[in-house]
Amino acid sequence: MKNIKLVIEYDGTRYNGWQAQKNGLGIQTVITKAIETVTGEEIQLNGSGRTDAGVHAYGQVANFHTCSSVPGERFMFALNSLLPEDIAIVQSEEVDDGFHARFNAVGKTYRYLLWNSNRPNALLANRAYHVAPALAVEAMGEAAQLFVGEHDFAAFRAQGGSAKTSVRTIYSATVQRETGSYGGGNLIFVELHGNGFLYNMVRIIAGTLVEIGLGKKSSVDILKGFETLDRTMTGQTLPPYGLYLKQVFY
Amino acid sequence: MKNIKLVIEYDGTRYNGWQAQKNGLGIQTVITKAIETVTGEEIQLNGSGRTDAGVHAYGQVANFHTCSSVPGERFMFALNSLLPEDIAIVQSEEVDDGFHARFNAVGKTYRYLLWNSNRPNALLANRAYHVAPALAVEAMGEAAQLFVGEHDFAAFRAQGGSAKTSVRTIYSATVQRETGSYGGGNLIFVELHGNGFLYNMVRIIAGTLVEIGLGKKSSVDILKGFETLDRTMTGQTLPPYGLYLKQVFY
Repeated sequence: MKNIKLVIEYDGTRYNGWQAQKNGLGIQTVITKAIETVTGEEIQLNGSGRTDAGVHAYGQVANFHTCSSVPGERFMFALNSLLPEDIAIVQSEEVDDGFHARFNAVGKTYRYLLWNSNRPNALLANRAYHVAPALAVEAMGEAAQLFVGEHDFAAFRAQGGSAKTSVRTIYSATVQRETGSYGGGNLIFVELHGNGFLYNMVRIIAGTLVEIGLGKKSSVDILKGFETLDRTMTGQTLPPYGLYLKQVFY
Repeated sequence: MKNIKLVIEYDGTRYNGWQAQKNGLGIQTVITKAIETVTGEEIQLNGSGRTDAGVHAYGQVANFHTCSSVPGERFMFALNSLLPEDIAIVQSEEVDDGFHARFNAVGKTYRYLLWNSNRPNALLANRAYHVAPALAVEAMGEAAQLFVGEHDFAAFRAQGGSAKTSVRTIYSATVQRETGSYGGGNLIFVELHGNGFLYNMVRIIAGTLVEIGLGKKSSVDILKGFETLDRTMTGQTLPPYGLYLKQVFY
Protein backbone atom coordinates (compact mmCIF):
# COMPACT_ATOMS: atom_id res chain seq x y z
CA MET A 1 0.00 0.00 0.00
CA LYS A 2 1.39 3.36 -1.07
CA ASN A 3 0.28 6.85 -0.16
CA ILE A 4 0.40 9.20 -3.17
CA LYS A 5 0.42 12.99 -2.87
CA LEU A 6 -0.80 15.05 -5.82
CA VAL A 7 -0.38 18.78 -6.49
CA ILE A 8 -3.21 19.91 -8.74
CA GLU A 9 -3.86 22.91 -10.95
CA TYR A 10 -7.32 23.69 -12.28
CA ASP A 11 -9.49 26.22 -14.00
CA GLY A 12 -12.61 26.06 -11.83
CA THR A 13 -14.92 27.70 -14.39
CA ARG A 14 -16.68 24.54 -15.57
CA TYR A 15 -16.95 22.88 -12.15
CA ASN A 16 -19.15 23.09 -9.12
CA GLY A 17 -16.14 23.35 -6.83
CA TRP A 18 -13.65 20.81 -5.53
CA GLN A 19 -16.16 18.53 -3.89
CA ALA A 20 -18.83 16.58 -5.72
CA GLN A 21 -22.21 18.30 -5.46
CA LYS A 22 -25.72 17.16 -6.15
CA ASN A 23 -26.17 19.77 -8.83
CA GLY A 24 -22.85 19.76 -10.61
CA LEU A 25 -19.54 18.11 -11.32
CA GLY A 26 -16.84 18.29 -8.65
CA ILE A 27 -13.13 18.41 -9.55
CA GLN A 28 -12.49 15.73 -6.92
CA THR A 29 -14.87 13.38 -8.73
CA VAL A 30 -13.14 13.87 -12.08
CA ILE A 31 -9.68 13.18 -10.61
CA THR A 32 -10.95 10.22 -8.56
CA LYS A 33 -12.31 8.59 -11.73
CA ALA A 34 -8.99 9.10 -13.53
CA ILE A 35 -7.08 7.53 -10.59
CA GLU A 36 -9.49 4.59 -10.55
CA THR A 37 -8.90 4.08 -14.28
CA VAL A 38 -5.12 4.05 -13.74
CA THR A 39 -5.15 1.82 -10.63
CA GLY A 40 -8.17 -0.38 -11.28
CA GLU A 41 -9.09 0.19 -7.63
CA GLU A 42 -11.74 2.14 -5.80
CA ILE A 43 -9.91 4.97 -4.09
CA GLN A 44 -10.62 7.79 -1.65
CA LEU A 45 -9.11 11.14 -2.65
CA ASN A 46 -8.48 13.51 0.29
CA GLY A 47 -8.22 17.15 -0.71
CA SER A 48 -6.56 19.81 1.46
CA GLY A 49 -9.93 21.54 1.59
CA ARG A 50 -12.83 22.55 -0.60
CA THR A 51 -12.78 25.30 -3.17
CA ASP A 52 -16.06 26.88 -4.25
CA ALA A 53 -17.59 26.74 -7.70
CA GLY A 54 -15.56 28.91 -10.09
CA VAL A 55 -12.48 29.10 -7.84
CA HIS A 56 -9.17 28.09 -9.45
CA ALA A 57 -6.03 26.42 -8.13
CA TYR A 58 -2.34 26.43 -8.95
CA GLY A 59 -1.51 24.11 -6.08
CA GLN A 60 -4.40 22.22 -4.56
CA VAL A 61 -3.05 19.15 -2.74
CA ALA A 62 -4.70 15.74 -2.36
CA ASN A 63 -3.62 12.23 -1.38
CA PHE A 64 -4.86 8.68 -1.87
CA HIS A 65 -3.81 5.17 -0.91
CA THR A 66 -3.26 2.53 -3.56
CA CYS A 67 -1.77 -0.92 -4.13
CA SER A 68 -0.94 0.02 -7.73
CA SER A 69 2.59 -0.71 -8.96
CA VAL A 70 2.71 2.65 -10.76
CA PRO A 71 5.62 4.64 -9.25
CA GLY A 72 4.54 7.79 -7.39
CA GLU A 73 6.12 10.23 -9.81
CA ARG A 74 4.54 8.50 -12.82
CA PHE A 75 0.98 9.19 -11.67
CA MET A 76 1.36 12.75 -12.96
CA PHE A 77 1.85 11.54 -16.53
CA ALA A 78 -0.74 8.75 -16.34
CA LEU A 79 -3.42 11.05 -14.91
CA ASN A 80 -2.68 14.00 -17.21
CA SER A 81 -3.26 11.75 -20.20
CA LEU A 82 -6.78 11.04 -18.90
CA LEU A 83 -7.84 14.34 -17.33
CA PRO A 84 -9.72 17.09 -19.17
CA GLU A 85 -7.52 20.00 -20.23
CA ASP A 86 -8.75 22.31 -17.44
CA ILE A 87 -7.36 20.00 -14.73
CA ALA A 88 -3.63 19.17 -14.55
CA ILE A 89 -1.51 17.24 -12.08
CA VAL A 90 1.62 19.35 -11.61
CA GLN A 91 3.43 16.96 -9.27
CA SER A 92 2.95 13.45 -7.88
CA GLU A 93 5.05 11.54 -5.37
CA GLU A 94 4.92 8.75 -2.85
CA VAL A 95 4.78 10.06 0.73
CA ASP A 96 4.76 8.65 4.27
CA ASP A 97 1.80 6.42 5.01
CA GLY A 98 0.50 8.82 7.65
CA PHE A 99 0.33 11.87 5.38
CA HIS A 100 -3.18 13.34 5.00
CA ALA A 101 -3.71 16.33 2.67
CA ARG A 102 -6.26 17.96 4.97
CA PHE A 103 -5.25 17.02 8.51
CA ASN A 104 -1.54 17.69 7.97
CA ALA A 105 -1.92 21.06 6.23
CA VAL A 106 -0.33 23.80 8.37
CA GLY A 107 -0.94 26.72 6.05
CA LYS A 108 -2.20 27.92 2.70
CA THR A 109 -1.57 30.74 0.28
CA TYR A 110 -4.45 32.20 -1.71
CA ARG A 111 -4.23 34.73 -4.51
CA TYR A 112 -7.04 37.05 -5.53
CA LEU A 113 -6.54 38.46 -9.02
CA LEU A 114 -7.82 41.94 -9.92
CA TRP A 115 -7.91 43.50 -13.39
CA ASN A 116 -7.72 47.24 -12.81
CA SER A 117 -8.49 49.16 -15.99
CA ASN A 118 -11.27 51.24 -17.47
CA ARG A 119 -11.90 48.39 -19.89
CA PRO A 120 -12.51 44.68 -19.30
CA ASN A 121 -9.97 41.96 -20.19
CA ALA A 122 -11.36 39.46 -22.69
CA LEU A 123 -8.53 37.01 -22.06
CA LEU A 124 -9.09 37.02 -18.29
CA ALA A 125 -12.86 36.57 -18.30
CA ASN A 126 -13.63 34.14 -15.44
CA ARG A 127 -10.03 34.57 -14.23
CA ALA A 128 -9.88 38.03 -12.66
CA TYR A 129 -12.30 40.52 -11.09
CA HIS A 130 -12.61 43.74 -13.08
CA VAL A 131 -12.33 47.01 -11.14
CA ALA A 132 -12.64 50.02 -13.47
CA PRO A 133 -11.58 53.03 -11.28
CA ALA A 134 -7.85 53.27 -10.54
CA LEU A 135 -7.00 51.51 -7.28
CA ALA A 136 -4.63 53.02 -4.71
CA VAL A 137 -2.47 49.91 -4.56
CA GLU A 138 -0.03 51.29 -1.99
CA ALA A 139 -2.86 52.11 0.41
CA MET A 140 -4.23 48.60 -0.10
CA GLY A 141 -0.83 47.08 0.65
CA GLU A 142 -0.46 49.11 3.84
CA ALA A 143 -3.96 48.22 5.02
CA ALA A 144 -3.30 44.56 4.24
CA GLN A 145 -0.59 44.56 6.92
CA LEU A 146 -3.35 44.89 9.55
CA PHE A 147 -4.47 41.35 8.72
CA VAL A 148 -1.06 39.91 9.61
CA GLY A 149 -0.95 38.14 12.98
CA GLU A 150 -3.54 36.29 15.03
CA HIS A 151 -7.01 37.82 14.85
CA ASP A 152 -10.64 36.86 15.23
CA PHE A 153 -11.86 37.00 11.63
CA ALA A 154 -15.58 36.67 12.46
CA ALA A 155 -16.28 39.92 10.57
CA PHE A 156 -14.50 38.51 7.51
CA ARG A 157 -16.39 35.28 6.98
CA ALA A 158 -19.65 34.23 5.42
CA GLN A 159 -22.30 32.16 7.13
CA GLY A 160 -22.21 28.49 6.25
CA GLY A 161 -18.73 27.42 7.29
CA SER A 162 -18.25 24.65 9.81
CA ALA A 163 -15.27 26.16 11.66
CA LYS A 164 -15.47 26.02 15.48
CA THR A 165 -13.40 29.13 16.01
CA SER A 166 -12.96 32.20 13.84
CA VAL A 167 -9.46 32.92 15.14
CA ARG A 168 -6.82 32.53 12.43
CA THR A 169 -3.22 33.60 11.95
CA ILE A 170 -2.14 35.41 8.79
CA TYR A 171 1.62 35.16 8.15
CA SER A 172 1.77 37.58 5.24
CA ALA A 173 -0.57 39.76 3.22
CA THR A 174 0.60 41.53 0.07
CA VAL A 175 -0.94 43.63 -2.70
CA GLN A 176 1.22 44.02 -5.80
CA ARG A 177 0.98 45.10 -9.40
CA GLU A 178 2.17 42.59 -11.96
CA THR A 179 4.94 44.02 -14.09
CA GLY A 180 5.54 41.13 -16.54
CA SER A 181 4.33 40.72 -20.12
CA TYR A 182 0.93 39.65 -18.88
CA GLY A 183 -1.34 42.51 -17.96
CA GLY A 184 1.06 45.44 -18.33
CA GLY A 185 0.58 46.87 -14.85
CA ASN A 186 -3.20 46.45 -14.80
CA LEU A 187 -3.12 43.13 -12.98
CA ILE A 188 -3.09 43.31 -9.19
CA PHE A 189 -2.30 40.29 -7.02
CA VAL A 190 -3.70 40.15 -3.51
CA GLU A 191 -1.96 37.31 -1.68
CA LEU A 192 -2.62 35.94 1.77
CA HIS A 193 -0.61 33.28 3.56
CA GLY A 194 -2.16 31.96 6.73
CA ASN A 195 -2.65 28.91 8.90
CA GLY A 196 -6.24 28.55 7.73
CA PHE A 197 -9.09 30.45 6.16
CA LEU A 198 -12.78 30.75 7.04
CA TYR A 199 -15.60 30.45 4.53
CA ASN A 200 -15.25 33.26 1.93
CA MET A 201 -12.56 34.89 4.09
CA VAL A 202 -10.14 35.67 1.23
CA ARG A 203 -12.93 37.02 -0.96
CA ILE A 204 -14.17 39.31 1.86
CA ILE A 205 -10.65 40.50 2.72
CA ALA A 206 -9.98 41.19 -0.98
CA GLY A 207 -13.31 43.01 -1.20
CA THR A 208 -12.44 45.13 1.84
CA LEU A 209 -9.03 45.97 0.33
CA VAL A 210 -10.66 46.96 -2.98
CA GLU A 211 -12.99 49.33 -1.12
CA ILE A 212 -9.93 50.80 0.61
CA GLY A 213 -8.23 51.13 -2.79
CA LEU A 214 -11.29 53.04 -4.02
CA GLY A 215 -11.30 55.32 -0.96
CA LYS A 216 -14.68 53.99 0.19
CA LYS A 217 -13.21 52.39 3.29
CA SER A 218 -10.02 52.85 5.29
CA SER A 219 -7.77 50.87 7.60
CA VAL A 220 -10.04 51.93 10.45
CA ASP A 221 -12.79 49.70 9.05
CA ILE A 222 -10.52 46.67 9.29
CA LEU A 223 -9.77 47.49 12.93
CA LYS A 224 -13.51 47.98 13.58
CA GLY A 225 -14.14 44.58 12.03
CA PHE A 226 -11.70 42.97 14.46
CA GLU A 227 -13.22 44.90 17.37
CA THR A 228 -16.92 44.43 16.67
CA LEU A 229 -16.72 41.05 14.87
CA ASP A 230 -19.52 42.52 12.75
CA ARG A 231 -19.69 41.43 9.11
CA THR A 232 -21.49 44.64 8.15
CA MET A 233 -18.33 46.64 9.02
CA THR A 234 -16.27 44.95 6.31
CA GLY A 235 -16.23 44.91 2.52
CA GLN A 236 -18.19 43.05 -0.11
CA THR A 237 -17.51 39.41 -0.98
CA LEU A 238 -15.75 39.43 -4.34
CA PRO A 239 -16.81 36.80 -6.90
CA PRO A 240 -15.20 33.33 -6.87
CA TYR A 241 -13.61 33.52 -10.31
CA GLY A 242 -10.79 35.86 -9.16
CA LEU A 243 -9.67 33.44 -6.44
CA TYR A 244 -6.80 30.94 -6.73
CA LEU A 245 -5.59 28.39 -4.17
CA LYS A 246 -1.87 28.90 -4.76
CA GLN A 247 -0.09 26.64 -2.32
CA VAL A 248 -0.70 24.32 0.62
CA PHE A 249 2.01 23.99 3.26
CA TYR A 250 2.84 20.89 5.35
CA MET B 1 -20.25 61.08 -40.77
CA LYS B 2 -17.45 59.93 -38.46
CA ASN B 3 -14.87 57.20 -38.96
CA ILE B 4 -14.29 55.23 -35.74
CA LYS B 5 -11.23 53.06 -35.13
CA LEU B 6 -11.46 50.22 -32.61
CA VAL B 7 -8.67 48.19 -31.01
CA ILE B 8 -10.10 44.83 -30.01
CA GLU B 9 -9.03 42.03 -27.66
CA TYR B 10 -10.62 38.60 -27.83
CA ASP B 11 -10.42 35.04 -26.68
CA GLY B 12 -11.08 33.22 -29.95
CA THR B 13 -12.00 29.88 -28.34
CA ARG B 14 -15.77 30.14 -28.79
CA TYR B 15 -15.71 31.70 -32.26
CA ASN B 16 -15.29 30.54 -35.79
CA GLY B 17 -12.70 33.24 -36.43
CA TRP B 18 -12.93 36.95 -37.09
CA GLN B 19 -15.15 36.74 -40.12
CA ALA B 20 -18.71 35.44 -40.11
CA GLN B 21 -18.86 31.87 -41.39
CA LYS B 22 -21.69 29.66 -42.58
CA ASN B 23 -21.02 27.15 -39.82
CA GLY B 24 -20.25 29.32 -36.83
CA LEU B 25 -20.27 32.71 -35.17
CA GLY B 26 -17.69 35.29 -36.29
CA ILE B 27 -16.27 37.87 -33.89
CA GLN B 28 -16.89 40.55 -36.52
CA THR B 29 -20.62 39.70 -36.49
CA VAL B 30 -20.85 40.00 -32.70
CA ILE B 31 -19.14 43.41 -32.66
CA THR B 32 -21.13 44.64 -35.67
CA LYS B 33 -24.38 43.85 -33.84
CA ALA B 34 -23.21 45.72 -30.73
CA ILE B 35 -22.27 48.77 -32.83
CA GLU B 36 -25.65 48.66 -34.57
CA THR B 37 -27.35 48.60 -31.16
CA VAL B 38 -25.38 51.66 -30.03
CA THR B 39 -25.79 53.65 -33.25
CA GLY B 40 -29.18 52.48 -34.47
CA GLU B 41 -27.61 52.25 -37.93
CA GLU B 42 -26.57 49.48 -40.24
CA ILE B 43 -22.79 49.59 -40.29
CA GLN B 44 -19.90 47.91 -42.12
CA LEU B 45 -17.03 46.86 -39.83
CA ASN B 46 -13.65 46.59 -41.62
CA GLY B 47 -11.14 44.40 -39.79
CA SER B 48 -7.38 44.59 -40.39
CA GLY B 49 -7.57 40.99 -41.56
CA ARG B 50 -9.11 37.66 -40.67
CA THR B 51 -8.05 35.50 -37.79
CA ASP B 52 -8.82 31.77 -37.88
CA ALA B 53 -11.13 29.89 -35.54
CA GLY B 54 -9.52 29.64 -32.09
CA VAL B 55 -6.96 32.42 -32.70
CA HIS B 56 -6.88 35.20 -30.09
CA ALA B 57 -6.13 38.90 -30.28
CA TYR B 58 -4.73 41.56 -27.98
CA GLY B 59 -4.91 44.23 -30.65
CA GLN B 60 -7.09 43.47 -33.66
CA VAL B 61 -8.04 46.76 -35.37
CA ALA B 62 -11.27 47.59 -37.17
CA ASN B 63 -13.07 50.72 -38.35
CA PHE B 64 -16.60 51.77 -39.26
CA HIS B 65 -18.41 54.89 -40.44
CA THR B 66 -21.33 56.27 -38.46
CA CYS B 67 -23.54 59.35 -38.11
CA SER B 68 -23.97 58.63 -34.39
CA SER B 69 -23.40 61.51 -31.97
CA VAL B 70 -21.51 59.19 -29.58
CA PRO B 71 -17.95 60.59 -29.20
CA GLY B 72 -15.24 58.30 -30.58
CA GLU B 73 -13.65 57.53 -27.22
CA ARG B 74 -17.03 56.65 -25.67
CA PHE B 75 -17.65 53.76 -28.06
CA MET B 76 -15.28 51.64 -25.96
CA PHE B 77 -17.52 51.95 -22.90
CA ALA B 78 -20.80 51.65 -24.81
CA LEU B 79 -19.68 48.54 -26.69
CA ASN B 80 -18.03 46.83 -23.69
CA SER B 81 -21.34 47.05 -21.82
CA LEU B 82 -22.97 45.05 -24.64
CA LEU B 83 -20.25 42.62 -25.72
CA PRO B 84 -19.79 39.12 -24.30
CA GLU B 85 -16.96 38.85 -21.77
CA ASP B 86 -14.57 37.16 -24.23
CA ILE B 87 -14.54 40.22 -26.53
CA ALA B 88 -13.35 43.62 -25.27
CA ILE B 89 -12.78 46.96 -26.95
CA VAL B 90 -9.48 48.23 -25.54
CA GLN B 91 -9.48 51.58 -27.36
CA SER B 92 -11.82 53.62 -29.56
CA GLU B 93 -11.23 56.94 -31.28
CA GLU B 94 -12.38 59.06 -34.18
CA VAL B 95 -9.90 58.97 -37.07
CA ASP B 96 -9.49 60.59 -40.49
CA ASP B 97 -12.26 59.80 -42.89
CA GLY B 98 -9.89 57.96 -45.24
CA PHE B 99 -8.60 55.49 -42.63
CA HIS B 100 -9.28 51.83 -43.48
CA ALA B 101 -8.20 49.13 -41.00
CA ARG B 102 -7.17 46.71 -43.74
CA PHE B 103 -5.92 48.86 -46.61
CA ASN B 104 -3.86 51.20 -44.41
CA ALA B 105 -2.19 48.51 -42.30
CA VAL B 106 1.58 48.60 -42.86
CA GLY B 107 2.56 45.87 -40.44
CA LYS B 108 1.44 43.41 -37.78
CA THR B 109 2.89 41.68 -34.76
CA TYR B 110 1.83 38.15 -33.92
CA ARG B 111 2.67 36.18 -30.80
CA TYR B 112 2.72 32.41 -30.60
CA LEU B 113 2.54 31.16 -27.01
CA LEU B 114 4.24 27.90 -25.99
CA TRP B 115 3.91 26.12 -22.66
CA ASN B 116 7.15 24.16 -22.22
CA SER B 117 6.91 21.72 -19.33
CA ASN B 118 6.56 18.00 -18.77
CA ARG B 119 3.02 18.67 -17.55
CA PRO B 120 0.11 20.54 -19.19
CA ASN B 121 -1.16 23.91 -17.92
CA ALA B 122 -4.81 23.77 -16.89
CA LEU B 123 -5.09 27.55 -16.77
CA LEU B 124 -3.71 27.95 -20.31
CA ALA B 125 -5.85 25.32 -22.03
CA ASN B 126 -6.85 26.80 -25.41
CA ARG B 127 -4.33 29.61 -24.83
CA ALA B 128 -0.91 28.02 -25.34
CA TYR B 129 0.55 25.03 -27.20
CA HIS B 130 2.04 22.43 -24.88
CA VAL B 131 5.52 21.13 -25.71
CA ALA B 132 6.70 18.57 -23.14
CA PRO B 133 10.46 18.11 -23.90
CA ALA B 134 12.71 21.01 -22.90
CA LEU B 135 13.14 23.44 -25.79
CA ALA B 136 16.52 24.96 -26.68
CA VAL B 137 15.20 28.50 -26.58
CA GLU B 138 18.52 30.15 -27.48
CA ALA B 139 18.85 28.03 -30.61
CA MET B 140 15.28 28.93 -31.54
CA GLY B 141 16.03 32.62 -31.06
CA GLU B 142 19.13 32.44 -33.24
CA ALA B 143 17.31 30.52 -35.97
CA ALA B 144 14.44 33.03 -35.85
CA GLN B 145 16.88 35.74 -37.04
CA LEU B 146 16.97 34.01 -40.44
CA PHE B 147 13.36 35.06 -41.00
CA VAL B 148 14.23 38.74 -40.63
CA GLY B 149 14.35 40.64 -43.92
CA GLU B 150 12.59 40.23 -47.26
CA HIS B 151 12.06 36.59 -48.25
CA ASP B 152 9.79 34.45 -50.36
CA PHE B 153 7.79 32.60 -47.69
CA ALA B 154 6.14 30.12 -50.09
CA ALA B 155 7.51 27.21 -48.01
CA PHE B 156 5.95 28.74 -44.88
CA ARG B 157 2.34 29.07 -45.97
CA ALA B 158 -0.66 26.82 -46.25
CA GLN B 159 -2.78 26.40 -49.34
CA GLY B 160 -5.94 28.46 -49.37
CA GLY B 161 -4.67 32.00 -48.98
CA SER B 162 -5.52 34.60 -51.60
CA ALA B 163 -2.18 36.44 -51.61
CA LYS B 164 -0.76 37.22 -55.05
CA THR B 165 2.85 37.08 -53.95
CA SER B 166 4.49 35.10 -51.17
CA VAL B 167 7.25 37.66 -50.64
CA ARG B 168 7.02 39.32 -47.24
CA THR B 169 9.33 41.36 -45.02
CA ILE B 170 9.88 40.41 -41.38
CA TYR B 171 11.18 43.29 -39.26
CA SER B 172 11.86 41.32 -36.10
CA ALA B 173 11.59 37.75 -34.85
CA THR B 174 12.15 36.89 -31.20
CA VAL B 175 11.87 33.83 -28.97
CA GLN B 176 11.84 34.57 -25.24
CA ARG B 177 11.04 32.92 -21.95
CA GLU B 178 8.56 34.77 -19.76
CA THR B 179 10.05 35.59 -16.40
CA GLY B 180 7.04 37.22 -14.67
CA SER B 181 4.63 35.73 -12.16
CA TYR B 182 2.74 33.99 -14.92
CA GLY B 183 4.29 30.74 -16.04
CA GLY B 184 7.51 30.76 -14.04
CA GLY B 185 9.90 30.34 -16.95
CA ASN B 186 7.81 27.68 -18.72
CA LEU B 187 6.06 30.13 -21.03
CA ILE B 188 7.83 30.91 -24.29
CA PHE B 189 6.81 33.79 -26.52
CA VAL B 190 7.55 33.59 -30.24
CA GLU B 191 6.95 37.04 -31.72
CA LEU B 192 7.06 38.13 -35.34
CA HIS B 193 6.71 41.66 -36.62
CA GLY B 194 6.33 41.98 -40.37
CA ASN B 195 4.68 43.90 -43.18
CA GLY B 196 2.21 41.09 -43.77
CA PHE B 197 1.68 37.39 -43.20
CA LEU B 198 0.55 34.56 -45.50
CA TYR B 199 -2.09 31.98 -44.56
CA ASN B 200 -0.86 30.00 -41.50
CA MET B 201 2.60 31.60 -41.87
CA VAL B 202 3.10 32.35 -38.16
CA ARG B 203 1.90 28.90 -37.14
CA ILE B 204 4.28 27.22 -39.62
CA ILE B 205 7.23 29.43 -38.60
CA ALA B 206 6.49 28.70 -34.91
CA GLY B 207 6.24 24.98 -35.75
CA THR B 208 9.58 25.10 -37.54
CA LEU B 209 11.18 26.89 -34.58
CA VAL B 210 9.77 24.30 -32.16
CA GLU B 211 11.31 21.49 -34.25
CA ILE B 212 14.61 23.38 -34.13
CA GLY B 213 14.21 23.73 -30.34
CA LEU B 214 13.72 19.96 -30.15
CA GLY B 215 16.79 19.28 -32.31
CA LYS B 216 14.68 17.74 -35.09
CA LYS B 217 15.44 20.53 -37.53
CA SER B 218 18.15 23.17 -37.82
CA SER B 219 18.68 26.61 -39.30
CA VAL B 220 19.65 24.87 -42.53
CA ASP B 221 16.04 23.76 -42.98
CA ILE B 222 14.87 27.37 -42.90
CA LEU B 223 17.42 28.29 -45.59
CA LYS B 224 16.34 25.26 -47.65
CA GLY B 225 12.75 26.44 -47.31
CA PHE B 226 13.68 29.83 -48.76
CA GLU B 227 15.70 28.17 -51.54
CA THR B 228 13.30 25.43 -52.62
CA LEU B 229 10.01 27.19 -51.72
CA ASP B 230 8.93 23.66 -50.74
CA ARG B 231 6.43 23.36 -47.87
CA THR B 232 7.67 19.83 -47.08
CA MET B 233 11.06 21.29 -46.02
CA THR B 234 9.55 23.27 -43.16
CA GLY B 235 7.92 22.47 -39.81
CA GLN B 236 4.43 21.46 -38.79
CA THR B 237 1.57 23.94 -38.55
CA LEU B 238 0.98 24.53 -34.84
CA PRO B 239 -2.65 24.69 -33.64
CA PRO B 240 -4.56 28.00 -33.78
CA TYR B 241 -5.13 28.35 -30.03
CA GLY B 242 -1.51 29.40 -29.29
CA LEU B 243 -1.69 32.32 -31.74
CA TYR B 244 -2.40 35.95 -30.81
CA LEU B 245 -2.71 38.98 -33.11
CA LYS B 246 -0.82 41.40 -30.89
CA GLN B 247 -0.70 44.68 -32.77
CA VAL B 248 -1.50 46.25 -36.13
CA PHE B 249 0.65 49.13 -37.35
CA TYR B 250 -0.47 52.09 -39.50
